[in-house]
Amino acid sequence: MSAKGYKLTEADLLPLSIGAALLGTGGGGNPYIGMLRTRELMRRGAEVEVIPLDALPDDAWVSEVGGIGAPVVGVEKIEQGEECLRAMRAVEEVAGVRMSAMISAEIGGANSMEPIIVAAQAGLPVIDGDGMGRAFPEVQMTSFFIYGAKPSPAAIADEKGNVVIFKDVIDMFWLEKFARDVAVDMGAAAGLAIAPMRMDFVRKSAVPGTVTLALDIGRALLAARAKRRNVVEEVLKTTGGTLFFTGKITDIRRELKGGFSRGEAKLSGTGDWAGSEAVIAIQNENLVLWVDGVPVIMVPDLIVNLELETGEPITTEMLRYGQRIATIGLPVHDLMKTPRALDIVGPAAFGYPELTFTPLASSRSAD
Amino acid sequence: MSAKGYKLTEADLLPLSIGAALLGTGGGGNPYIGMLRTRELMRRGAEVEVIPLDALPDDAWVSEVGGIGAPVVGVEKIEQGEECLRAMRAVEEVAGVRMSAMISAEIGGANSMEPIIVAAQAGLPVIDGDGMGRAFPEVQMTSFFIYGAKPSPAAIADEKGNVVIFKDVIDMFWLEKFARDVAVDMGAAAGLAIAPMRMDFVRKSAVPGTVTLALDIGRALLAARAKRRNVVEEVLKTTGGTLFFTGKITDIRRELKGGFSRGEAKLSGTGDWAGSEAVIAIQNENLVLWVDGVPVIMVPDLIVNLELETGEPITTEMLRYGQRIATIGLPVHDLMKTPRALDIVGPAAFGYPELTFTPLASSRSAD
Repeated sequence: MSAKGYKLTEADLLPLSIGAALLGTGGGGNPYIGMLRTRELMRRGAEVEVIPLDALPDDAWVSEVGGIGAPVVGVEKIEQGEECLRAMRAVEEVAGVRMSAMISAEIGGANSMEPIIVAAQAGLPVIDGDGMGRAFPEVQMTSFFIYGAKPSPAAIADEKGNVVIFKDVIDMFWLEKFARDVAVDMGAAAGLAIAPMRMDFVRKSAVPGTVTLALDIGRALLAARAKRRNVVEEVLKTTGGTLFFTGKITDIRRELKGGFSRGEAKLSGTGDWAGSEAVIAIQNENLVLWVDGVPVIMVPDLIVNLELETGEPITTEMLRYGQRIATIGLPVHDLMKTPRALDIVGPAAFGYPELTFTPLASSRSAD
Repeated sequence: MSAKGYKLTEADLLPLSIGAALLGTGGGGNPYIGMLRTRELMRRGAEVEVIPLDALPDDAWVSEVGGIGAPVVGVEKIEQGEECLRAMRAVEEVAGVRMSAMISAEIGGANSMEPIIVAAQAGLPVIDGDGMGRAFPEVQMTSFFIYGAKPSPAAIADEKGNVVIFKDVIDMFWLEKFARDVAVDMGAAAGLAIAPMRMDFVRKSAVPGTVTLALDIGRALLAARAKRRNVVEEVLKTTGGTLFFTGKITDIRRELKGGFSRGEAKLSGTGDWAGSEAVIAIQNENLVLWVDGVPVIMVPDLIVNLELETGEPITTEMLRYGQRIATIGLPVHDLMKTPRALDIVGPAAFGYPELTFTPLASSRSAD
């Protein structure tokens, strides 16, 4: 109950959103709208404190919230702004508890902002950590569920006023199934709140420090850009990532299927990779990078595409023919690559049973 | 608070299920399994009283329950037996009320038995009436919703232990959408309980006396069969129905689509209708009967197919090539053919905007 947090300022929101977009590994939706909404709440007087994992007592209740839907739709369909708050309140009511803090389901993409928005609306702090350390396409793919969070009661709310509670759900896969289909009914942009988690559980199961990590990444990227330094290099330094490919997109295929955006991008190498070819598989996020037919980065490690000139993180729905990109790999947090985690978020879980997960080394540890 | 009810006996269950199957107008699922389950509960000591609409005080709470799914699946997938009870209990909990009685969403088909099963399990009476006076394929197609029942909180439960609560739903069409998709996820056999209704509302909006009507129809049919009388004629006498066609099925087409069974049957006339052709459109239930191209019975009036020899009601999924059937029409209750009702259950609501509903006259009133 010791460690100190920090107050999130308006100036933090832009770097936070840029860092979150990068950690989205191409998916997770764009945090821009959420950033604008958070800024508006702050300008009206809302204050949000980011607190470390040891700030609250063991028996405090924590709420994990996030938007649910397909990012292809999310770009066009803007949430009304209280979906996650209403979902969180419904869970509080049916579970008979009061939440002490919010935590993000996924730091990557738009869901980095959702718990901050609810925190601002409800006057709660937000925990420095999340359930993925990146973005993933499905509800059960969080460290919380991997390490035993209860799948119910959870709740989902839309902008029209509909609130559906998953009161008893036999496992997290059923929660994903129900929540996904209701979200698609709702128009594929809804707020989901999972069952209350006790702080002692969250302390062990959350990916730690990821709000601060996103902030640091965003700040480094903005600073490099302001000082006209090589942005990609600065990002590699901050994240401990490795550059795996530079190239030009020669083909991009995407389709919206059952609430997910699936597809594939093909790249022709430039610079050090001239003469090489790369393929990136996508299900909302970047899943696997092959260079000349060899898989070099694979889920759950992070595959991030940056615009070569500006270092801007590119989401999968923004990929387009002719774009010049740098593809970097970041090692995912250890919690997400245990055997138990790989069952849920490893290559086989995404339809690549032939790939054996080979973790990336952190270039940061070698510095 | 005056009128007396009657205790349902084990001997009532077979005629009740036969009458309910007939009122299912080809759909609503087969009440046979529900009948066996009710019998089992009765043999273990459960007692169920059928009470008239004026038996309870105005402020008593009534629960409408029913199975939800596609009858094509329902035939094969058997409910575990406590789906509707769990859904009802979830609604009680979230609404903070205790139910005083059960009522059927639809007397036609399997849902005739569901509230009786819950009544037996919970020790409650069942009201003599229902929300359709027949069977319809969608949740919002009840007299309750037509006349203003609240769409939430409602709940759905499956045999595996999943319970989903529709806590706030903006209208009954959204309830149908959410409940149908969750039911399909659940494997297309789930129990739905809608929001608690006050008795003063139920008294005005329920189709009255339909449990007793189903019993009477079943008894008449069984008696005629035992006495080797013409079963079809006896059914017409009891129901006030009219014979519209006799013929042989020459073509039958069915498909399962979005949780519904849709299709069409073609008949070649026999007896008085020799030389004529008939077509019956189906969406779970029989929707329209055309004889020689002229629509002669249309939804919401009841189109019932009876096996010509035995008088057995035939559900749409039991129709088969070469079958000889008598098609009779029964006028639906007045509550289901007001302009307000026809908006929800008239021909246009089922995709026949070109048909203007022409109600059947009751042959009983002309007796």
